[in-house]
Amino acid sequence: MSGPATFNSEPMAYDAVKEGGELYRIVSGLYPICRSITGDGVRESLRLLQPEAPLELHEVPSGTKVFDWVVPPEWNIRDAYIKNSQGEKVVDFQESNLHVVNYSRPIRKKMTLSELRPHLFSLPDSPEWIPYRTSYYKESWGFCLTDRQLEGLADGEYEVCIDSTLEPGHLTYGELLIPGATDEEVLISAHCCHPSLANDNLSGMAVAARLAHHLSSRSLRYAYRFLWMPGTIGSITWLALNEAHLAKIKHGLVLSCVGDPGRFTYKRSRSGDAEIDRVTAHVLQHSGREFQLLDFSPIGYDERQYCSPGINLPVGCFMRTPNGKYPQYHTSADNLSLVKPASLAESLGQLLQIVAALEDNRSYVNLNPKCEPQLGRRGLFRQMGGTKNPATEEAILWVLNFSDGLHSLLDIATKSGISLAVLAVAARQLKESGLLNDHNGAGK
Amino acid sequence: MSGPATFNSEPMAYDAVKEGGELYRIVSGLYPICRSITGDGVRESLRLLQPEAPLELHEVPSGTKVFDWVVPPEWNIRDAYIKNSQGEKVVDFQESNLHVVNYSRPIRKKMTLSELRPHLFSLPDSPEWIPYRTSYYKESWGFCLTDRQLEGLADGEYEVCIDSTLEPGHLTYGELLIPGATDEEVLISAHCCHPSLANDNLSGMAVAARLAHHLSSRSLRYAYRFLWMPGTIGSITWLALNEAHLAKIKHGLVLSCVGDPGRFTYKRSRSGDAEIDRVTAHVLQHSGREFQLLDFSPIGYDERQYCSPGINLPVGCFMRTPNGKYPQYHTSADNLSLVKPASLAESLGQLLQIVAALEDNRSYVNLNPKCEPQLGRRGLFRQMGGTKNPATEEAILWVLNFSDGLHSLLDIATKSGISLAVLAVAARQLKESGLLNDHNGAGK
Amino acid sequence: MSGPATFNSEPMAYDAVKEGGELYRIVSGLYPICRSITGDGVRESLRLLQPEAPLELHEVPSGTKVFDWVVPPEWNIRDAYIKNSQGEKVVDFQESNLHVVNYSRPIRKKMTLSELRPHLFSLPDSPEWIPYRTSYYKESWGFCLTDRQLEGLADGEYEVCIDSTLEPGHLTYGELLIPGATDEEVLISAHCCHPSLANDNLSGMAVAARLAHHLSSRSLRYAYRFLWMPGTIGSITWLALNEAHLAKIKHGLVLSCVGDPGRFTYKRSRSGDAEIDRVTAHVLQHSGREFQLLDFSPIGYDERQYCSPGINLPVGCFMRTPNGKYPQYHTSADNLSLVKPASLAESLGQLLQIVAALEDNRSYVNLNPKCEPQLGRRGLFRQMGGTKNPATEEAILWVLNFSDGLHSLLDIATKSGISLAVLAVAARQLKESGLLNDHNGAGK
Repeated sequence: MSGPATFNSEPMAYDAVKEGGELYRIVSGLYPICRSITGDGVRESLRLLQPEAPLELHEVPSGTKVFDWVVPPEWNIRDAYIKNSQGEKVVDFQESNLHVVNYSRPIRKKMTLSELRPHLFSLPDSPEWIPYRTSYYKESWGFCLTDRQLEGLADGEYEVCIDSTLEPGHLTYGELLIPGATDEEVLISAHCCHPSLANDNLSGMAVAARLAHHLSSRSLRYAYRFLWMPGTIGSITWLALNEAHLAKIKHGLVLSCVGDPGRFTYKRSRSGDAEIDRVTAHVLQHSGREFQLLDFSPIGYDERQYCSPGINLPVGCFMRTPNGKYPQYHTSADNLSLVKPASLAESLGQLLQIVAALEDNRSYVNLNPKCEPQLGRRGLFRQMGGTKNPATEEAILWVLNFSDGLHSLLDIATKSGISLAVLAVAARQLKESGLLNDHNGAGK
Repeated sequence: MSGPATFNSEPMAYDAVKEGGELYRIVSGLYPICRSITGDGVRESLRLLQPEAPLELHEVPSGTKVFDWVVPPEWNIRDAYIKNSQGEKVVDFQESNLHVVNYSRPIRKKMTLSELRPHLFSLPDSPEWIPYRTSYYKESWGFCLTDRQLEGLADGEYEVCIDSTLEPGHLTYGELLIPGATDEEVLISAHCCHPSLANDNLSGMAVAARLAHHLSSRSLRYAYRFLWMPGTIGSITWLALNEAHLAKIKHGLVLSCVGDPGRFTYKRSRSGDAEIDRVTAHVLQHSGREFQLLDFSPIGYDERQYCSPGINLPVGCFMRTPNGKYPQYHTSADNLSLVKPASLAESLGQLLQIVAALEDNRSYVNLNPKCEPQLGRRGLFRQMGGTKNPATEEAILWVLNFSDGLHSLLDIATKSGISLAVLAVAARQLKESGLLNDHNGAGK
Repeated sequence: MSGPATFNSEPMAYDAVKEGGELYRIVSGLYPICRSITGDGVRESLRLLQPEAPLELHEVPSGTKVFDWVVPPEWNIRDAYIKNSQGEKVVDFQESNLHVVNYSRPIRKKMTLSELRPHLFSLPDSPEWIPYRTSYYKESWGFCLTDRQLEGLADGEYEVCIDSTLEPGHLTYGELLIPGATDEEVLISAHCCHPSLANDNLSGMAVAARLAHHLSSRSLRYAYRFLWMPGTIGSITWLALNEAHLAKIKHGLVLSCVGDPGRFTYKRSRSGDAEIDRVTAHVLQHSGREFQLLDFSPIGYDERQYCSPGINLPVGCFMRTPNGKYPQYHTSADNLSLVKPASLAESLGQLLQIVAALEDNRSYVNLNPKCEPQLGRRGLFRQMGGTKNPATEEAILWVLNFSDGLHSLLDIATKSGISLAVLAVAARQLKESGLLNDHNGAGK
């Protein structure tokens, strides 16, 4: 039996303008919600994605041991503010959920400015922006505010209120498995724990959901497992609870910061030459767009966990401008004006190409390996000689020459400079002509 | 027993000016003949080469099955023309054998211009040049003409005549084996099927013949097998009929387009790092001339067959400007003014260097591997210290240090930047001093 | 048991200004002595180094067979001159010991200028400099003089005197072993045979002595074997007499020309990727100074012997401007004004860094390899999230991720761009936290 239909034989319907609108709509809907690594904000966000992709919510109790970590208490917050001595709210959670240090313990107290000051965080170099700060694992409290706000605080007494709870509950994550012809899996992972930060990572959450939407109607070779999880503790939790399952994961991508207009960035997996690394580099090289390739480092997103030495999955990270490399990163300026419909759609487009290349990348065997077969009588070659080979004939010659059981289509794409998508069409034609077979018998 | 004398110990007599004259004379003699993949034009051409190199003509009957192909009927042509309604020949085979689509079936018929038009081929972008077209495997007929001629054809009736035959006969190729001390072979292959095209490939045919001439008087380590064959079907035929012999072929070169004044081009064999690839790159790097190195691709000349996955011989392609990369390629402008005596001679000179390097590239073993031997008392080193080592001493030190059974002279040449020719002299001196031996005993 | 204290946990005391003064003082003290490959000049020089480093003098009798060589007769010289017919000394050994061809046999004779002329050596292109010439292995005599002196010699009779002896005696070398926790050794070798040439190689002799001085007070992982030996015959002699010992030598450096102000040069060992090659490249890359890396060649200093194919030790050569690459090389202009205190001290500083990197370069095993450990609760990570990782945290993450038994700290340094010194601190912290162990159990 031959493998499932390739993406090439059934082209992807994809309208970039429409898709950009859809993606921006999702990001906008998610933006106001106060998310954290646990709590109702995550639940509400995941439910907003369900119309796009039928993900399931999973709940893991606080206190669950996950490798070296413990699932923390659940954090929820209703309100928070600082009032001055005139009773005016000078910092107000209702205006921006970034104003509260994420995971702040509840507090309600009057104090002087000098008592309050150690709990206030601003960005003197960007005085109009609110920083994003967290204190997940050390019980603490604090407020983030613009430096302009901070400079305007007069001496005197302030009323501080954080109406939060930090109690036993659950860590919530979303999961969706789209089945394939085999049980080999591609993992797509996006962190969903940041509050009102648009590029990091509502963009990744939304693009993952729309990617799942597109794949759910396809005949696929691989199964695709989508995870929307809080950063670090989420992936650690999932990996600890699914350790027996990990051998099925053959390729993976972390999606983050995919909505800004910057060039594409692909950060390789730990080995640096996994198939996902080579496929993604290939797609970007043929994209006609600017991009950069980075080697793996243990600083970044959840690839840190997927690529820890005892897990060591072939998972890279797909981004536009990386974390820490755009000025608005982890500030209130990472907002709905930083992400663009066209950028979101373009990111999704590249991911669909990457998926297509993973699906199409196979090894074949030339069934007529001694000299070229006579392609003309099979309708695969022009009959008039003396002119240059058309591109389709060149693709056929490359596939024939290097389908020796040692080279995948991606290897041939690298050697020839021809895109894997074009080679896949040539391979299909050659199979139909009986000149090529799947490596290792009749399809795998 | 030590191996045969190297090229270095018996320098090659080679007069570039005289050689350029000889080569140009051969090309000029071959130029008017109408060759094809079969037929009397090939036979006549091969016989013209016999005074240079005593090649034998081989005849393979039409209908012979050769791998996926069948030797086609033999094609011969006496005349062809198009006459206008006034009886004037407006296209005349006697003026250029390119005017007929090669392998055209016989035809004699009157027809209108619009009936004739689909059988006419010109080059609108080069209106003074006749294109070269073939139709070997689909029975057809046609004429090639300058675009100026085509534009001048008035409406009206034309008389078309192609006085050709397409009948059971033979495919003809030329072969010459120059024996060596071992039965390991170097293959030199040139296609001989193109009609009046000088660079592609009368240049290759002539240079191969003169190379054979020079080698025939030498004491050689390798045997050299020269083949002059029709492109594609010729090499497929030879490979199919000589399959049992192929294991003896250790190195090979296809020669093509070696008469134009462009820089040298070497296209590597399929593996990309065969000894012939490394030797040729080395010689070109030390040639003081411009050159380019290309990776193998399955588009080109008969290296396509030699390097098909089921044959996979270490055969590269030696050219000046490659096929398709000069404007006159496959047109009537690839004529006797495109090829130059000096260019032909220079190509032969490089090939002699390549042969010398293949002959000289051996592995040796330092018989005094612990520290340097005292070279001074053996007359291999200056006695006065404090000055820079002369180049000959440096070559000796390099050969001694890396003759450990793991490095050939070519490896040492690559490490040191010293030419293999100079290292070979040093190796001979060291052998004579008893400091070096052939790897694996007393010469191989 | 854990290994010995690293250099990082016990920082090196090193005062560059003071050290420059010490080194220049040593070089200045050695400068006037007439050294050669044997004789009292070597003995006197080595004794001058003993206050810095307690090296032992070894004496090997003339006539001792050492591999392909024989220890030559011992050469000593008291005086030499050329007097003109007026009895004036026109060339005088007392003014510069370079005036005599090193190893000249004794002579006392009157002769004409034309008889004398073949024994006179000058540098026409540098008419104010005396060349350095030797004739160790062919009995001969001669004088070196400035070209200006040579041009001034009038015809007439000259009295030639070389008051030397060339008699059975000894070859002398200096050796010092500083023990380490293991019996694996690092070899440091400097040639000590050149007469009044400051950079080549009083600089190397002095820097080796001060390096030994600094190491002698340290707790070390490796033993350090220092050798001060005549070039070529000295290393050959030592290798021949210590062949059974060579397997203990794990890393080595030849020191030469380390006193001029040029950029650093490191010439790799024969394999090109020995640990010493990678460590030295790493240190230079993090030095903030200009440097060049050269591949091994069998032309140079005693690395020629250490890296001969039958010895093949991982020994590189550490220099500033290499032999033959500065105009004063092997002339009287390689004097006390060419070497600089600051340059000598900087060379010693780099060597101390190289030693520290060798000492620190180990492999570790992450004891919590599945996902990141929770570093915050161990005090190894900031508790406030949202900000960039400080450099110390990044070092910890890199060490954890790649301490998988396959990567040394140097490998991790190369991957991360972080210096090995910083990674070594991180590794120590992780070991103290119980998150890391030495590869292969409890320290090696």
